[in-house]
Amino acid sequence: MENFLSENETSERATLPQKRARTAASDSDVQERLRAIVGAEHVLTEPERVEPYAQDAVKEKFPPEVVLFPRITKEISEILRLANERRFPVTARGGGVGYTGGAVPVEGGVVIGTDRMNEIKEINVADLYVVTEPGVVTYALQQAVEKHKLFFPPDPSSYKQSFIGGNIAENAGGIRSAKYGVTKHYVLGLEVVLPSGEIIRTGGVTSKNVVGFDLTGLICGSEGMLGIITEATLRLLPLPEATRTVRATFRTMEEACLCVPRFAQRSLVPVAIEVMDKHAIEAIENEFAFGISKNAGALLLVAVDGAPEEVERASLIVEEVMRAGGGFDVLRAVTPADEDRLWDVRRALSPAIKKYGTLKFNEDVVVPRSRVPELIRRAEEIGRRNETFVVNFGHAGDGNIHVNFMCDREDAEAVKRARKSVGEIFAAAVELGGTISGEHGIGYTKAPYLDMALGAATIDLMKKIKRALDPNNILNPGKMFV
Amino acid sequence: MENFLSENETSERATLPQKRARTAASDSDVQERLRAIVGAEHVLTEPERVEPYAQDAVKEKFPPEVVLFPRITKEISEILRLANERRFPVTARGGGVGYTGGAVPVEGGVVIGTDRMNEIKEINVADLYVVTEPGVVTYALQQAVEKHKLFFPPDPSSYKQSFIGGNIAENAGGIRSAKYGVTKHYVLGLEVVLPSGEIIRTGGVTSKNVVGFDLTGLICGSEGMLGIITEATLRLLPLPEATRTVRATFRTMEEACLCVPRFAQRSLVPVAIEVMDKHAIEAIENEFAFGISKNAGALLLVAVDGAPEEVERASLIVEEVMRAGGGFDVLRAVTPADEDRLWDVRRALSPAIKKYGTLKFNEDVVVPRSRVPELIRRAEEIGRRNETFVVNFGHAGDGNIHVNFMCDREDAEAVKRARKSVGEIFAAAVELGGTISGEHGIGYTKAPYLDMALGAATIDLMKKIKRALDPNNILNPGKMFV
Repeated sequence: MENFLSENETSERATLPQKRARTAASDSDVQERLRAIVGAEHVLTEPERVEPYAQDAVKEKFPPEVVLFPRITKEISEILRLANERRFPVTARGGGVGYTGGAVPVEGGVVIGTDRMNEIKEINVADLYVVTEPGVVTYALQQAVEKHKLFFPPDPSSYKQSFIGGNIAENAGGIRSAKYGVTKHYVLGLEVVLPSGEIIRTGGVTSKNVVGFDLTGLICGSEGMLGIITEATLRLLPLPEATRTVRATFRTMEEACLCVPRFAQRSLVPVAIEVMDKHAIEAIENEFAFGISKNAGALLLVAVDGAPEEVERASLIVEEVMRAGGGFDVLRAVTPADEDRLWDVRRALSPAIKKYGTLKFNEDVVVPRSRVPELIRRAEEIGRRNETFVVNFGHAGDGNIHVNFMCDREDAEAVKRARKSVGEIFAAAVELGGTISGEHGIGYTKAPYLDMALGAATIDLMKKIKRALDPNNILNPGKMFV
Repeated sequence: MENFLSENETSERATLPQKRARTAASDSDVQERLRAIVGAEHVLTEPERVEPYAQDAVKEKFPPEVVLFPRITKEISEILRLANERRFPVTARGGGVGYTGGAVPVEGGVVIGTDRMNEIKEINVADLYVVTEPGVVTYALQQAVEKHKLFFPPDPSSYKQSFIGGNIAENAGGIRSAKYGVTKHYVLGLEVVLPSGEIIRTGGVTSKNVVGFDLTGLICGSEGMLGIITEATLRLLPLPEATRTVRATFRTMEEACLCVPRFAQRSLVPVAIEVMDKHAIEAIENEFAFGISKNAGALLLVAVDGAPEEVERASLIVEEVMRAGGGFDVLRAVTPADEDRLWDVRRALSPAIKKYGTLKFNEDVVVPRSRVPELIRRAEEIGRRNETFVVNFGHAGDGNIHVNFMCDREDAEAVKRARKSVGEIFAAAVELGGTISGEHGIGYTKAPYLDMALGAATIDLMKKIKRALDPNNILNPGKMFV
């Protein structure tokens, strides 16, 4: 089955002046020992060569002092032991396409690139799991298992660049999560190097496993702060035989979103329920002229999967619900080519909205799905008040909306207003019963907002766990907590 | 939709002599303060009244000194603050039907019964979640949401006695997990009283939420050792419109189990794939005479769910796969009454095997599902060698098999041989790539075996987390670690 999106939506934030740190990782004796651990040919120290590892999709540069490309777990263990001995920061990096700076060495030190740990070790067809190293690109992993008619559902939109290790560390979401949940729901077991350098295994290969605390769950989404993932065992499903998409436009966002609970009332769980607002529609129409009606205030893309008979049945119900709910220009795919064409409008979004600003703040807030229309009203109001253009689209099925505030990166005042808008949309999401991140994590960009979403005692507990595992604050410092 | 089982399978272990501890919880000033916290009418201290709270399904008695029935979170917080001040153990208790002693106060002190915290606070139909207090019986919760055509899938066989709080604390499994996963996959957010008495909230109401470490996941399955759950927000699904079951017998366990991957090859994910071995079949035939063939070496019960058209289609494929795989006496349900009759053999199991011994060691080992036949061969070999009767049945879809060693509780030698068998089947499960518990947890009964399944560094990390959260070892001491 083809994924719904085929292009990474990279952010276009301001490139701030470089912040270059100096730690013991720059000491020549430390660098000599690092060369001995991973081999001199897998060590970068020259400023121009470490430069590409200074940023992720946020595009702010924090250059590492050293970049290492270990091949095996034991090398990572030795790097971390040395880091504790000499007290330099270590940050693991996957595909480097995160939106919150999770893989960026904000306090300098060493970046561990997992690029060479890119082997799929086992695809177990009978027992429905795959064992993989962290440096495998998520899309490549999906392609590899699909050859065996197996399915790894999590599909963050960066899946053609992101590494599976990074997806696990960030507990990545995606379009299919309305039906299939998020990355952590597919992680059965991990090999992890702890901040101390100790190597542990968590979980196993079975979906039922209640032996001790759920360390697998704790590491998923821990943003590389509690350990470095060196191997993962992932649960697979049989590949659905077919997918069918229905697209419709609506006069208002309310009308579009009111369809969402109606699918459930008809006992349907669509794979994907994607929504876009009128600014998003205008943007793609202006740029690509798909022929979407000028009266469209919202657009819904709904996909169902299963056996061919089942997707036929379910997609007819989807169509019926959308028509009854005020949907017009309803298009139901019949062939795979139709399918692809319907998703073109979603793929066109990222390039289309670029014209609204050279700098995009893409914030992945999440609210209970019935509150999506209200969230979008608030986003528009915030944009109007702060004179910032805003485009909203995202995953209506799980309430995870990408609110994009657009501005000109050269216009300092406009950037300031856009940043203010970001804080306000976070507050709105929390007020509506949601939270500040559904998919991107906290990293350093959202760290100042953490206490909007979590109480002091909850944050204290997270810090306590971090300290218990990483007393010297070696692993990915400067993230999550301010 | 009716659940597949309707009867709790309680264990029948030896009733050992009572082990009565004495801690500060017996001090009169402490008891006075406890009465002030929860109200005197909600405090039990008399030996005969605390007695029912001395055991779970393991049936070994460890009487608490005091049993408290708080109504609100703040009371639990105050109890834990006092426990830290005066250093007495506190153990939370749900339905008290666990299999590993998780709710049993092995070191005495206070038991907190959550019986009065039994309100379902909100059923949100539009946003597919329920907010509940911990003392709601799991079955009652399911019935309540099913009135709204919603579905809470986890169904441990004790679901008519177990409390939802206990199910979360133990990360309970069940029959439907082949398709729907386990309890932790449905927990969106929690309110938890930490061992210190601090009250935190974790997660939220949305399925996407990557704000900070996944404390919700850490608390699920932590066996009441890291916090007491006082409220839970659980994800719901639309209730499937129909369920359809197919039953078949096979000459051998191998033949039966070889069908399991073939369902996946046909792109089917059955809700339940239950298997029973020849001893289990003999037991129910001897007791209830269902008319199962004498040639049956294994029996499979396979259920699919979905729309009526879809269960018709899928159940025909199930039938076809089972016939092609050597299944005979294949019965496919047509009416709900048929459905019920097919499951009667599974429900008959617990009462039927009682005649093989007055004491049953029900061990919930789990292996990769392709290794189930080998696990059962090993169980039989272990039983033969130790002269202990063994009956095997369970969840073939996820490799979680209940291996039941039966003996006479009055025969000390036989009990010893059965215990030896338990250790040996744990070793076999681990050797086959599985682990020592798929559903029941560790508690105190499996604590001596923990290091069979987990490496020293993994156990050390769990202890480190426990110490970070509970430095005085107040909450549920004597569990998981020896």
